[in-house]
Amino acid sequence: MNICTYSYDEYLHLIKTFHGSLAPGLIIGGFIVDLALQNLPEGELFDAICETPICLPDAVQILTPCTIGNGWLAVLDSGRFAVTLYEKDSGEGVRVYLDTKKLEKWPEVRDWYLKRKKKEGQDFDLLMSQIKEAGHNLLGMQRVKVDTEKVRRKKLGPVGICPLCGEAYPSRDGDWCRNCAGDTPYTNISSLDPEKENP
Amino acid sequence: MNICTYSYDEYLHLIKTFHGSLAPGLIIGGFIVDLALQNLPEGELFDAICETPICLPDAVQILTPCTIGNGWLAVLDSGRFAVTLYEKDSGEGVRVYLDTKKLEKWPEVRDWYLKRKKKEGQDFDLLMSQIKEAGHNLLGMQRVKVDTEKVRRKKLGPVGICPLCGEAYPSRDGDWCRNCAGDTPYTNISSLDPEKENP
Repeated sequence: MNICTYSYDEYLHLIKTFHGSLAPGLIIGGFIVDLALQNLPEGELFDAICETPICLPDAVQILTPCTIGNGWLAVLDSGRFAVTLYEKDSGEGVRVYLDTKKLEKWPEVRDWYLKRKKKEGQDFDLLMSQIKEAGHNLLGMQRVKVDTEKVRRKKLGPVGICPLCGEAYPSRDGDWCRNCAGDTPYTNISSLDPEKENP
Repeated sequence: MNICTYSYDEYLHLIKTFHGSLAPGLIIGGFIVDLALQNLPEGELFDAICETPICLPDAVQILTPCTIGNGWLAVLDSGRFAVTLYEKDSGEGVRVYLDTKKLEKWPEVRDWYLKRKKKEGQDFDLLMSQIKEAGHNLLGMQRVKVDTEKVRRKKLGPVGICPLCGEAYPSRDGDWCRNCAGDTPYTNISSLDPEKENP
């Protein structure tokens, strides 16, 4: 049993290293990406969509060339547990999702995924063994056409210097950067001199 | 010269493997994360903020335990080239950014970063050597307090089955999932049977 070019155990090791814990969703995510890669439409360059930010983006980043930072992975917020790989230009793609109709055979996976049991009531070892046993059999698959304009990352465009913070920002955002326009998570800002601090 | 626990050349190798290309922004991002890690406030568990989706999130994901999928990395869209690492609970953090006032000493970096030269006119080798020579000297640093509520990923909450697509979704989104409510990038959807397809 392989997940893409890795053995199952190698993939578990990669999850631990990159994601920090053996998240059940990321193991199912490995099977999802594996099935999608086996059923790519024709083409050479593929971008990815995850329909939830939870766990799945890490399966895509571990197993494909698509990352958040290179812009080939888009994360949507519909909260469905699905990955789509699609040809960059044509938008022709394959979408693989967790099929709720197939959950009954693996009740521990069902109760975890549909949140029917609190964490304390879950049997982690049973959950892991049912996920491994199920493999691709939990999954559904669709051909889709992706409206690439809707998911493609905006280009940065021209760059200006914000007159308030002095940092570079996308000029399209207006006369000053979004942070200085008020969309900021920061308070109590004080400057530090990198040359005088550690190390 | 190290980037966190890696030699400079090891870090370049990691960039190529994970990100796919030697993006100049990701090399500067390595120095940014390195400086931030050296100046963490007190605490044990740190989350990360990137203020742009371009390149920087991959530096954080390569060099820290924070990823998109585990929810410890938030990506904002102010477009400023900055990373903040902050203590999960208190929000006390260190913010490291590319300081435009320090760019004059490295004109090839300046012209690349501020988009003063088209790609054809850039000297890639000179750009790379100036980035390496500059190291931390291109950077500014601030202590900040993060409003953690503004950046923390929403919990999934209760899960329902969408009556239209039959997939699981966050019940808080309403009577059906966001995709079926019309926020979708897909057209021309047709089912495939995973058992009948490749391999």
